[in-house]
Order: sequence, then structure tokens, then C-alpha cells
Amino acid sequence: MEVFYSPEIKNGVCVLPEEESAHCVRVLRHREGDEIFVIDGLGTLYTCRLTDASPKAACAQVLREEPDWGAHPYFLEMAVCPTKNLDRYEWFAEKATELGLDVVAPVIGDHSERKVFKSDRLRRILLAASKQSLKGAVPEVKEPVSVRQYIQDAPEDALKIICCCFEGETPRTSINDVLNVISRDNVILSECEESRSFAALRMTKKIIVLIGPEGDFSREEAALAVSRGFIPVHLGPSRLRTETAALTAVQAVYLKCI
Amino acid sequence: MEVFYSPEIKNGVCVLPEEESAHCVRVLRHREGDEIFVIDGLGTLYTCRLTDASPKAACAQVLREEPDWGAHPYFLEMAVCPTKNLDRYEWFAEKATELGLDVVAPVIGDHSERKVFKSDRLRRILLAASKQSLKGAVPEVKEPVSVRQYIQDAPEDALKIICCCFEGETPRTSINDVLNVISRDNVILSECEESRSFAALRMTKKIIVLIGPEGDFSREEAALAVSRGFIPVHLGPSRLRTETAALTAVQAVYLKCI
Repeated sequence: MEVFYSPEIKNGVCVLPEEESAHCVRVLRHREGDEIFVIDGLGTLYTCRLTDASPKAACAQVLREEPDWGAHPYFLEMAVCPTKNLDRYEWFAEKATELGLDVVAPVIGDHSERKVFKSDRLRRILLAASKQSLKGAVPEVKEPVSVRQYIQDAPEDALKIICCCFEGETPRTSINDVLNVISRDNVILSECEESRSFAALRMTKKIIVLIGPEGDFSREEAALAVSRGFIPVHLGPSRLRTETAALTAVQAVYLKCI
Repeated sequence: MEVFYSPEIKNGVCVLPEEESAHCVRVLRHREGDEIFVIDGLGTLYTCRLTDASPKAACAQVLREEPDWGAHPYFLEMAVCPTKNLDRYEWFAEKATELGLDVVAPVIGDHSERKVFKSDRLRRILLAASKQSLKGAVPEVKEPVSVRQYIQDAPEDALKIICCCFEGETPRTSINDVLNVISRDNVILSECEESRSFAALRMTKKIIVLIGPEGDFSREEAALAVSRGFIPVHLGPSRLRTETAALTAVQAVYLKCI
């Protein structure tokens, strides 16, 4: 199933951006009258009929809409320090998108070797990953901020988790234990656990997971996070690279819901 | 912590292979009398004192042994069809090694586009990953066989799981449900779940997970697997690439034990 992306869908008409138009018309040779599938990147899949096979700005008429297409039953924001090797970071974000992710927030820690991060390249990668894994919503990529700033700005009411390698003021528990607690607290989730319906399931609380750089968080960052309501957790005894730790946290949330 | 590898440790003496010797002596500039850490790739960490800083065949005297160094409390064999893009397969195997894995078995399915696989390159990658993630045991990489052959030869007494995208003769359950069942059946595991001790935990049953190629298994392969006692499972509603599906299965086992 080939899926296109358009940020410009209104009044039953969809216009594809130039790159998507060229791919649709030049590469896949779609013609007027063909049915194509288009996501708006916000969660909806549109089934459309091509009305103008222009390779610069293809137009299509919307036939059907499917909201929450390929949606996951939780809201997960991963705040992860960029790795020295950017491929590893992009790999994590691509895999997390396949599984189900809402926001990637690149954060720069006291021990981060990489202090600069360009979000645009990652946005393109996550758009491709969303189309490939058949999801109507493309994860948002935030502009980088410092870990301290991120902690200060984190919302009060979210379930906030910090994965750190050292024991801080608060002893760490397994990320599973923390997620089990919210699962138990979450009526809709437990109903779903009986019905086994993924789509019916909703983790009502927004989940935020903070992952440090290769050199881990500074003690000050960890203490600040805990003082702001972040729960310090561990990801088990294995020594994981930053990107593996980040994906393990995503998997822990995803696997709670399948 | 820098870890070296030697397949040649006996009578309290350890000899490093040429590549490791050069890295130890030329790159890290270790000298006679230095303490170095060496794994045998079978699970034991040896603390040694360098007695001959030869860049071709460095020798060291064993001071201490630590068996089951960085060991995980389960035996997991992943039989995964090689991906078209080998980087993706190597990425999966590296990440799985960081988490905890015992055997990688490349298998060739009816729908595999890649029919040939060289195991040696992957062995080098997994050795590096084991050293980096501080594990004494390096996962074994088997020589490739066909999916059908692999199914025929799979041991009777293992917990055998096949992840397939279509509903076969037997309806699929979530991989979590299957792992929960063996967890409940496993006394030592449930004890551990109280004590929260990872090291104390042992999943007594060998776990084998079979993951198909980009084109999934053929109906015949899936039917053969089920007839040979493989339990068909799903990995949730997300459409996962082969390497993501494989890592998700590893995570499902790993996360059961943290």
C-alpha cells in the first residue's frame, strides 16, 4: 500500500506537495481517475481520486476519511539526548515511529558531546517512517533545548519518567513497575486488557520519558528532574547505548498495550 | 571499562589474538604489569595481569574469574530471515546482543529475497557488541538454513514461537500472553518477581522465536511450524519491519525479566 502525504487537504480537495506529486505521477505513473491514499500527518487517512496528475502539484478529490489511522492507545513523548553518531539517533526515532510515538524532543545535557541538532532531517525521516508503517500521524520533532530547560517546562500532569544509570536521591524502580501502576490506575486500560482490543485502549495520562547522553545525566540534572516530579527508573541490568535505552522505553510502553 | 577477547585461556594464562594484542599494546599502550579485563566469549570475565606486552600475541596471567558476567536469566534463540538491506539485520543483532541474546539463526524463507548470508561478518559485530555492553558471553551465529529445515530441526522441549502477520490455522495471541504463561508456570521466575532480583531469575525453558522475511512466511511454512509445535503470535497492531519485529520479540522477553 503506497501512502502519500499532504499538508493541504480542505473542502474535499487534496493537493500533493511537489516531491510527493513527482513520486505519484512520474515514479508510480498514477493518472487522472486513479485512487490514491493520502495522510495529513495529523492522524487521518484520506482515500482520494486523482483529478489532476500534475508532477508539480497533483490534485485529488477526497472520497473517504479514516481518522486515527494506525493510531496507538497512548501519548508518548521521548526526550532523548542526541547521540554522537546521528545515525543511531535517527535509527531510534525511525523504529519508535514504527511502534508508536507522538513526540521526539532532542535535549542537550550537561554531559552531551553533541550540543547542536538539526530537527529538519529527522522530520523527513519520520514522515517516511510513518508512511512506511501505515500511520496517519507523523510524530512531532521539537527544536532542541537543554535538559534543564526541558525539565522546567515539562507539564505537571504527565507521567514523567527519567532513565538514569546511577542511583539518585530516590532509588530507581523498573520502568515496568511504573507503567504497571498507571495501567492498574487506568480503568480504560484494564477494560481493554479484558477485551484485548488495542484500538479501544487509551492510556489517559501523557507519558514523558527522558533519556540522557552517552555520559548519562549530571547529578544536578537528575536531582532537578526528581524535584520536578520525574520518576527515576532503570531499564534492567544490561548496559544499553543511548539509542537502545530510548527504544527499550518505547517498547516497554508499546508492549504494555498489545 | 575496556574489555578484550581471548579464545585461548587455560592454566591461568591468557593469550590475546593478534588484533586484540595490537589494540591492547599499540592503541591503548598497555605495558607489562597492567591489569586488563578479558572475556572468553563463553560467559566468564577474567581479570588478568599483562606479562608479555607483545603486539602480536600479548600474554596475561589470570588473577580472578567471574562466571556468568553480564548474563541474562533466559535462553533466547532468534531465528530471523536476513533482510534485503543487511545493515538492518546487523543492527537488530547488535541491539539484541546489548539486551541479551544467546543465538542468532539466519533462516531463508520461501519469500526471502536474500537467499545467501555470510555469518562471519555478523560474528565480528556481535563480539564487538558483547564487549561494548559488558557481557562475558558472545551470542552464537549459526550458519543459514531454510525456514523449513530450521522448523524440522527445532528441539521438542523449547518454547517455540512464530511471529506471522497473517492469521493461520491457529488464531494468534500476543507474544506477551505466551510469555506470561511460561512466567506463571515458572516457579523461579515468580519467586524472582517478588525478590525483583534479575540475577536470581531463570527462565528454565529455552525460548525460540521465528521471524519471517519482508514478504512474511508462506502459508506452508506457517502451517509446518504450527504442526511442529510453534505457537503463532502477533507483536501488536503496528506494521513493523523485519528487524523491528525481531527486536520487539527480544524486548518482550527482556522486559519480562526486569
